[in-house]
Amino acid sequence: MERIEHRACFGGWQDVYRHRSHATDGEMRFAIYLPPQAKEQKVPVLYWLSGLTCTEQNFITKAGAQRYAAEQGVALVACDTSPRGEDVADDAAYDLGQGAGFYLNAITSPWSRHYRMYDYVAHELPALIEEHFQVTDKRAISGHSMGGHGALIVALKNSGRYCSVSAFSPIVAPSRVPWGEKAFSTYLGSDRETWRAYDAIELLKTSNEKIPLLIEQGDADEFLHTQLKPELLKAAADAAGHPIELRMRSGYDHSYYFIASFIGEHVAYHAAALRSP
Amino acid sequence: MERIEHRACFGGWQDVYRHRSHATDGEMRFAIYLPPQAKEQKVPVLYWLSGLTCTEQNFITKAGAQRYAAEQGVALVACDTSPRGEDVADDAAYDLGQGAGFYLNAITSPWSRHYRMYDYVAHELPALIEEHFQVTDKRAISGHSMGGHGALIVALKNSGRYCSVSAFSPIVAPSRVPWGEKAFSTYLGSDRETWRAYDAIELLKTSNEKIPLLIEQGDADEFLHTQLKPELLKAAADAAGHPIELRMRSGYDHSYYFIASFIGEHVAYHAAALRSP
Repeated sequence: MERIEHRACFGGWQDVYRHRSHATDGEMRFAIYLPPQAKEQKVPVLYWLSGLTCTEQNFITKAGAQRYAAEQGVALVACDTSPRGEDVADDAAYDLGQGAGFYLNAITSPWSRHYRMYDYVAHELPALIEEHFQVTDKRAISGHSMGGHGALIVALKNSGRYCSVSAFSPIVAPSRVPWGEKAFSTYLGSDRETWRAYDAIELLKTSNEKIPLLIEQGDADEFLHTQLKPELLKAAADAAGHPIELRMRSGYDHSYYFIASFIGEHVAYHAAALRSP
Repeated sequence: MERIEHRACFGGWQDVYRHRSHATDGEMRFAIYLPPQAKEQKVPVLYWLSGLTCTEQNFITKAGAQRYAAEQGVALVACDTSPRGEDVADDAAYDLGQGAGFYLNAITSPWSRHYRMYDYVAHELPALIEEHFQVTDKRAISGHSMGGHGALIVALKNSGRYCSVSAFSPIVAPSRVPWGEKAFSTYLGSDRETWRAYDAIELLKTSNEKIPLLIEQGDADEFLHTQLKPELLKAAADAAGHPIELRMRSGYDHSYYFIASFIGEHVAYHAAALRSP
């Protein structure tokens, strides 16, 4: 594991590391923000999963989350959105291949060798973080768009592992929207039964743990009615008796200006959950 | 003037416009953040000048300043760092030509036709902003690196036009450091007498108005001892009886993580000056 960026930020440090990943069989990068409190004591961690085309950089440069993490004494971890490299399968489209890992374990060729972002995010990365940094094993998870999908499925598939989950503009029903159908049919094949393991709405139906879902969504989001459809998650949660709060925000779009405007509320929300015994 | 971006942000709007500039004889872009207060009343304006290689985008995507502007009821305006376009003279180096206008009026060929960023920033842009937006004629100015130089010289050359000025990691003595010597000799020619009109330290010596200078500087800045040398400005200000506050910040570098960490204090500083009668 090698540190490749190290920058003072709001009294703490915004760092970036690269390391060899077993899960994705290649080099991965992640960013970690260590708040000032981490100099004195172990702090809990909020994981962030980014959307299509992003790397570990987008969240740390554009969201402005470090200020709130420094106030709350929470570390932030943001990883890449797929395996990368010349030997890693790819596609010319922005919504498939590198930059579009969809936080699942691929089972089709040629994707299955490296595209194991689910294992990376749910298991390998937290273990690595908890081994090497001044952090506790208290975890929260959030993300944007494809990463909102990732946050929801990782939390729902791992009862008890996360204190809280939230999502900005998430893909909530990947089995039923173009982005998800394209990715799932490519990475998982045509048998839609296998898709259920990575579909938040399907997971809701069988989840034993009722971890509350906090969804932030702009009503001027250009993908709202075609790719996101948060009302489907709301209906499924209500039907399953699963607690959900869907916050519609007037005028906001799909960009990081939306995330920046509300990330402070989410960091505070997660910090409260992470502090509770 | 055409609006090309329009995004909800912290209850206000982060917009980008392009327009035909008389000063630079070509198309220019600027970003304007209008805080929620601008829906009800005219608000004062903090102008931001960016550093080498930047466009109007860097500050609005990376600094996180909108949150503070929304709190304080201040508009933010950030422009490009040079004229742009295929017919605009350029240089392959990152520190000359497009992206490196140095906020002066060039007098040498082929630069003098378009490289008139001083006129653009000091006159044309404020007039345009005050004509078309819900803003008052109360102005403050700040910037980073080359843009910190720009903010200092624009404020010092225009007594009474700005309520306050500050700078992050500014080039304070362009006539005496490599970045400035390269730009000034190219844009202004070899006669160093002409350089004095754009050198903050020279301007300090003759300035009638004692507008206080607030300088924010990281002590881990990779350009501190070669290009920035804030101690030269401090010494010149002290010698001239010109009020200056030089804040050295331990561990911080030249990046936007530094700006983001302290921009809130600067927005509050400018807001207080803009509010005073």
